Amino acid sequence: MAFLDDDLSPLVWQDGALRLLDQRALPVEERWLTLTTHEEVATAIRDLTVRGAPAIGCAAAYGVALGARQVEAGSTTTLETVYATLQATRPTAVNLFWALRRMRAVPGQTSAALVEEARAIQREDIAACRRMGALGAPLVPPGGVLTHCNTGALATGGYGTALGVLRTLQAMGRAPQVFCDETRPVLQGARLTAWELLRSGIDATLITDGMGAHLMARGEIGSVLVGADRIAANGDVANKIGTYAVALAAAAHGLPFFVVAPWSTVDLATIDGAQIPIEERAAEEVTHLQGQRVAPAGIRVRNPAFDITPARLVAAIVTDRGVARAPFGPSLAALR
Amino acid sequence: MAFLDDDLSPLVWQDGALRLLDQRALPVEERWLTLTTHEEVATAIRDLTVRGAPAIGCAAAYGVALGARQVEAGSTTTLETVYATLQATRPTAVNLFWALRRMRAVPGQTSAALVEEARAIQREDIAACRRMGALGAPLVPPGGVLTHCNTGALATGGYGTALGVLRTLQAMGRAPQVFCDETRPVLQGARLTAWELLRSGIDATLITDGMGAHLMARGEIGSVLVGADRIAANGDVANKIGTYAVALAAAAHGLPFFVVAPWSTVDLATIDGAQIPIEERAAEEVTHLQGQRVAPAGIRVRNPAFDITPARLVAAIVTDRGVARAPFGPSLAALR
Repeated sequence: MAFLDDDLSPLVWQDGALRLLDQRALPVEERWLTLTTHEEVATAIRDLTVRGAPAIGCAAAYGVALGARQVEAGSTTTLETVYATLQATRPTAVNLFWALRRMRAVPGQTSAALVEEARAIQREDIAACRRMGALGAPLVPPGGVLTHCNTGALATGGYGTALGVLRTLQAMGRAPQVFCDETRPVLQGARLTAWELLRSGIDATLITDGMGAHLMARGEIGSVLVGADRIAANGDVANKIGTYAVALAAAAHGLPFFVVAPWSTVDLATIDGAQIPIEERAAEEVTHLQGQRVAPAGIRVRNPAFDITPARLVAAIVTDRGVARAPFGPSLAALR
Repeated sequence: MAFLDDDLSPLVWQDGALRLLDQRALPVEERWLTLTTHEEVATAIRDLTVRGAPAIGCAAAYGVALGARQVEAGSTTTLETVYATLQATRPTAVNLFWALRRMRAVPGQTSAALVEEARAIQREDIAACRRMGALGAPLVPPGGVLTHCNTGALATGGYGTALGVLRTLQAMGRAPQVFCDETRPVLQGARLTAWELLRSGIDATLITDGMGAHLMARGEIGSVLVGADRIAANGDVANKIGTYAVALAAAAHGLPFFVVAPWSTVDLATIDGAQIPIEERAAEEVTHLQGQRVAPAGIRVRNPAFDITPARLVAAIVTDRGVARAPFGPSLAALR
């Protein structure tokens, strides 16, 4: 198992290649892949070998560096193709586009300089996670914490966003009881968050997506912490499908709903949530589980991968630049 | 495939035995089991071979009849043991206890009379479903209908409760677009409702449990129809885990949330939802899917099988005796 700054990281640059923890194989197997081309990185982003908005940004940055090396080695591909291929992998998370813009700005576009920039992006992402942990921890009230999807080390360069806040609370001796919902259809909560929390020694309980509201009604949950794939200028939040339902339940019980995401997730060019494209993924993610059919052949399926939580349901957005609160428009703009 | 009154039924009394459609095997296989003892029926109820509050009531009634035949054939068991065994199978759905009380009231307690009473219970349950269909159909507004769990022929003696309303709408030429959520952890929506709706030719789309709220926000859902496992005197509704989250989402979008259940589901002796015992089922239902592990070994799990939807979130309760509305206390009492 690879550690970076003493933390689990799903991406390690090693001997001129990108070593990637295959998140499709977790929790059954810890399998590391060695990627040497930008095409392999693009495939890994598309098929969820690596997922989580900040981790996708880091992976894409390394993908550019690998592509530049292919070009320098005489490949027929061009750097323009490298950027275009990585750009087209997934539409919703904005960190991907942010990381690619940052890579484009590297003077000379040599592979050596691009590797350094990719490493800087990952290093800064981990530092941002630690800052969000410090800023977010004091906001979390007593009581259980519900989290959705995976927002941990696996979703970032390392440490995690919403789970990073829980790590910070743990370091402060205040780790709460955490409920992680399984997050259908891809089960990031059951497969990844449960695995990561167990490994970190944080008290964790796995539930299905429909159970959070019930536990809120019973007083077992005091707050909700989630990450984000894109935050619009007005504070609307695109995040993993099912987030909005959790936010509605939290609001109905008067519980604070916190979003924790690095500044690279904030997209001030997107006015509100209605402008955010929502990726629709393959029906098989819903009809099959690990290759086994669970629904009848022929049934129609919808599979939006994300939903929009309107800003009015959000208590605070914790970024590495500071904490934004309602009204989010000016509050986010002030952090720019 | 067995039909009763031209409808799919999961229970058929045939040649002195109970033929049961094995709902654990759907949608992959239509497997029929032949049960000849009350112990087999008790096991079938506990392990979800038969499920759905009204269907459990029917199965338990046939179980009593089979038990009486065992006693008459000289088994060492007693009729008291038969009742006690069936009574202890599942705690939440009240139809089970209602059916057993009705069986206890049969004069003489002979197997012949008990078989007749069990058949009457099933026949009357189907008739009740048809009446609920007629009463409920006019209430459904235009737009898509979201349903949770399985409330169809498979959950009843035949025809269905909430799905029965959709069948009636279909017969009236008004069948809406139906969204069935998969209903984790046991996937009754994906495995059973999707199968039953496909078979009935009703326009159906399968989604995960976290997607309903998102589709409501997009205006694709106009109402919610669910069944119930127990309805308290004040109108609080115990139903499959996840129902409460759907009800909160419907309320947030101003959409009517209808409960459709036979009068045998109404328990006027239970004052409110807080008094309803909630069955906690095995962790493996959450950590494994069809025998395959999806969560890490050692993770703690909660698995409440039901939740409580408070009466204030319910637009109407459709029973075979009439439609109850807020204030539900007097409205339900008037149907007694």
